[in-house]
Amino acid sequence: MAITVVGSVAFDTVETPAGRVDRCLAGAATYFSLAASYFTDVRVIAVVGEDFTAKEEAVFAARGIDTRGVERAPGKSFFWQGSYLENLNEAKTLQTDLNVFASFEPKIPAAYQDSEFLFLANIDPVLQKRVRDAMPGVKLVGGDTMNYWINDHRDNLLKMLACVDILLINDTETKLLAGSRNPVKAARDVLSLGPKSLVVKHGEYGATAFFGPNSFHGNGLDSHHPFRAPALPLAEVVDPTGAGDSFAGGFFGYIASQPELTPAVFKRAMFYGGVMGSFTVERFGTERLRQLTREEIEERFAIFRELTHLD
Amino acid sequence: MAITVVGSVAFDTVETPAGRVDRCLAGAATYFSLAASYFTDVRVIAVVGEDFTAKEEAVFAARGIDTRGVERAPGKSFFWQGSYLENLNEAKTLQTDLNVFASFEPKIPAAYQDSEFLFLANIDPVLQKRVRDAMPGVKLVGGDTMNYWINDHRDNLLKMLACVDILLINDTETKLLAGSRNPVKAARDVLSLGPKSLVVKHGEYGATAFFGPNSFHGNGLDSHHPFRAPALPLAEVVDPTGAGDSFAGGFFGYIASQPELTPAVFKRAMFYGGVMGSFTVERFGTERLRQLTREEIEERFAIFRELTHLD
Repeated sequence: MAITVVGSVAFDTVETPAGRVDRCLAGAATYFSLAASYFTDVRVIAVVGEDFTAKEEAVFAARGIDTRGVERAPGKSFFWQGSYLENLNEAKTLQTDLNVFASFEPKIPAAYQDSEFLFLANIDPVLQKRVRDAMPGVKLVGGDTMNYWINDHRDNLLKMLACVDILLINDTETKLLAGSRNPVKAARDVLSLGPKSLVVKHGEYGATAFFGPNSFHGNGLDSHHPFRAPALPLAEVVDPTGAGDSFAGGFFGYIASQPELTPAVFKRAMFYGGVMGSFTVERFGTERLRQLTREEIEERFAIFRELTHLD
Repeated sequence: MAITVVGSVAFDTVETPAGRVDRCLAGAATYFSLAASYFTDVRVIAVVGEDFTAKEEAVFAARGIDTRGVERAPGKSFFWQGSYLENLNEAKTLQTDLNVFASFEPKIPAAYQDSEFLFLANIDPVLQKRVRDAMPGVKLVGGDTMNYWINDHRDNLLKMLACVDILLINDTETKLLAGSRNPVKAARDVLSLGPKSLVVKHGEYGATAFFGPNSFHGNGLDSHHPFRAPALPLAEVVDPTGAGDSFAGGFFGYIASQPELTPAVFKRAMFYGGVMGSFTVERFGTERLRQLTREEIEERFAIFRELTHLD
């Protein structure tokens, strides 16, 4: 079953202790769709500029990703420059040029309307809500956001949260969105805003899923049973950019590949999310994510299981 | 099989967002021995002052803990005062009075010499090494340390590390002791100093065990297979003091209760460590740890499994 993702397709310049890359293909929708493409059909809604050439297009095409919803606009694509030299766990933003993204009006190809899954990557919550409303046929909606929208656009964000089934954000964003610093109470606060489930990403420590009282009825995913998936201890993290979006892509991609969202599927999806994030950070940009095989993914899934399972 | 633990038996005054307790029974050896007492026989080596009365003695006696190695000295017991008001994950030390601990010379009762397990809780590494050397019959030695010894007494600490089988320290201590900030490389560095295994405690995110090239031979615990155990997301952490020592107590207590240290036993021990830590933080001081039943422990163990296991 197909997933439509709306979000940024961008170019990044990134410095890490392992080196530097200039203007590599990046953006949340790019990482998400590459990761999800190993599990299911993916369709992208985004806007790019004239610097998005046949070379970048080929990256999506090689993974069979539908880019009919990627609008070409005059000007340059969204550009971000960041450094992880001081802290590999948190990027220091050096430059952000919205470029064509500043006037982004998502356009949804008619052929995307039969998508059963929708992922609203981190963009203006007004646009997230608009896309969600324009795709009434989707069965499951996932979403992401960031500090900027939580702090300065809370009213719009709350409207978006009311129509998201699974929200994937990190520890800092969770505490900022909630009224409590305690992780369980903070999750309860966020779940009261609408999502059936909150997946909190902990970076090198993995992720925890919490379920609300209005969770997936009758399938055993409930507020008394959070679920925690690991991250893999890696001897070298080359570039952490995109790990969270790759997690979301692996997570939703796996769910979309299964006939039903059972508790077992949700739990395995959490593991696949971690698996895809662990690949992404092994190389700069999307390099590692472009060249995987399903066998490598299954091998790493087995390592994640062995890392945490008693028997 | 019995465990001997050497470390502090102390009084703590603690402030947390949940309230305050004055001069409650505490200290690493106290938390460790109470936690381990649910699994095996425990013997304590420590020194206390005249403020350690029949009331405190009764806490150990109620759990069947052997205190013949707890010396009574003129003066007051070790006292620590800390606050978690600003940060529940890290105590701010307000006062430390070594008192009788300043001239502590561990004395090992002859009856302790048949202990098969020894845990060197966080004290001066010179004393840790002395106790280890004075108990040549032990089969497995665990140890803990802290920033102060790592920074200012490194030579003595290195001598201690050379005779420890399993070192249990937290993320910050691991990075400080190692030359790398990367968790895998840092673990490799620490393991090169002597321990067969390093258990890194991550607080609310659980703990990860790493194994060195000189690990437990032939039983499948090796350098290519770290193991990660969860911590339980709790809606209220009343007092984090002693969580790490309780983890160590549950971990070593369970190992000591088993006929052999197999990979399965090591992994289950990691879970039991998390279980005992999760109980400790639910009340001030040792309150929760005094009144557990083995049934409650097994119930929580099942929750830890459910929290992380796919099926």
